[in-house]
Amino acid sequence: MSEDQNGVLYVVGIGPGAKQHLTPAALEAIADAELVVGYSTYIGLVRDLLVGKEVIRTGMTEEIGRARAAVERARAGAKVALVSSGDAGVYGMAGLVFEVLREMNWKRNEPPELRIVPGITALNSCASLLGAPLVHDFCAISLSDLLTPWPVITRRIEAAASADFVIGLYNPASGRRTRQIVEAHDIICRYRPGTTPVGLVKSGYRSAQYVVMSDLDHFLDYEIGMLTTVLVGSSNTFLFEGYMVTPRGYTNKYTWDGKVLPGQRPARSLNYAEPETEPR
Amino acid sequence: MSEDQNGVLYVVGIGPGAKQHLTPAALEAIADAELVVGYSTYIGLVRDLLVGKEVIRTGMTEEIGRARAAVERARAGAKVALVSSGDAGVYGMAGLVFEVLREMNWKRNEPPELRIVPGITALNSCASLLGAPLVHDFCAISLSDLLTPWPVITRRIEAAASADFVIGLYNPASGRRTRQIVEAHDIICRYRPGTTPVGLVKSGYRSAQYVVMSDLDHFLDYEIGMLTTVLVGSSNTFLFEGYMVTPRGYTNKYTWDGKVLPGQRPARSLNYAEPETEPR
Repeated sequence: MSEDQNGVLYVVGIGPGAKQHLTPAALEAIADAELVVGYSTYIGLVRDLLVGKEVIRTGMTEEIGRARAAVERARAGAKVALVSSGDAGVYGMAGLVFEVLREMNWKRNEPPELRIVPGITALNSCASLLGAPLVHDFCAISLSDLLTPWPVITRRIEAAASADFVIGLYNPASGRRTRQIVEAHDIICRYRPGTTPVGLVKSGYRSAQYVVMSDLDHFLDYEIGMLTTVLVGSSNTFLFEGYMVTPRGYTNKYTWDGKVLPGQRPARSLNYAEPETEPR
Repeated sequence: MSEDQNGVLYVVGIGPGAKQHLTPAALEAIADAELVVGYSTYIGLVRDLLVGKEVIRTGMTEEIGRARAAVERARAGAKVALVSSGDAGVYGMAGLVFEVLREMNWKRNEPPELRIVPGITALNSCASLLGAPLVHDFCAISLSDLLTPWPVITRRIEAAASADFVIGLYNPASGRRTRQIVEAHDIICRYRPGTTPVGLVKSGYRSAQYVVMSDLDHFLDYEIGMLTTVLVGSSNTFLFEGYMVTPRGYTNKYTWDGKVLPGQRPARSLNYAEPETEPR
């Protein structure tokens, strides 16, 4: 390793874990790195790419140390790849990297050079295994209250449920943290019927992949843990042949022959009539 | 093309457009297909992969015809790839495919075999160009009211703004549709200060890439169109050296040396004190 060069810090999302969903950009970043830093599980997912490289793998609660180690070594001239599963920018290490750089009073024209490499986040990889649940407005909420006050989280669940978003729940539960998903369920049930489709995906695109199609009334009967992503449908989401589908709304305007419905115009605002709402 | 085999329908997200962000799974799906179907712009992004293949490219408002053509040909035995930019499951063609199949009374054990291939959606690719804006809870809202009643959309903007989500706006405007982004701005301004960071990305990872870092008070001064994604920060999002960053919350519990702050415990719920909220 030559630390006299200008350092580069790649912040890399490796996607769900399978090689077929790792982008060439992520692969190249890891290949170019002398040092690869990550949580042990993520490092394991790309271990065959790490031959001849220095590796720092740390536990789940050591994120600050991991981010600092990556930044400091890159600042000193190394090429470093900090890897997260999914997208490093979604509940991943990208935010912490910037916080560490700010704490160091780093300036943009100084080393290390930063390269954020996007990846396929759990929301999208899990959706592809369930069908097409995210084809209309959705939100992502982490149920982990280790770093976020629980009332902030419940306020978001309530808002998302009331405004009919499809809801993706990250970090729904852990060995110790089991109450949050029950509370989330209870809040959502105030706004949506028990028949609302709910999909669970554990370890999507990994060898232990486990996909469950359920509904609001029944999904708590299944195992939900650290590696599970929960997708709760909107009022428009339907189940079809074991798939979870949220329509985009084409049938509001068109027939199946592609003809425009009476009262509608293509490429114009949907003409709607809702009794509760003042028409424009 | 041999239509006597069992047909396969790949529904493929090609990511933002650059080859480095196209996954091997997406590449393989397109390579395996005899027929590739897509909106003209998306077909153009992968045109060098299409040598020797049949291609159906259609305009923006012909989604139903495109989905039907893809499904019907695959049902008849062809290997078909229906491509969308980003992730086909996010405001993409995946939903319509299932609606068409339902309309045909298709059963899961019948041909065609369905394979949904996830891709990097605009939210994630644009975030990687802006810094780390999506590291905490976020939502995606399309401002297109061509298929969705506008009051449904404004209700979602209001809920997302009030509950402090980072907000990603898809389809913020088009040549004809310019009022929606102004109304969205006005709603969000009721809940967030004018200094809230707002990032704009047009054609991210394509040759015409255009990235703007602005704020709520000023982002409407910039060009916003069909190919722009707008990311509005939460109350915690900050600007740092031209990057937009939403922290995950580590400094609520830890010092920069990784020590636990007084009153907090690692791997336990955040101990918080909010005057408006009943402590648990």
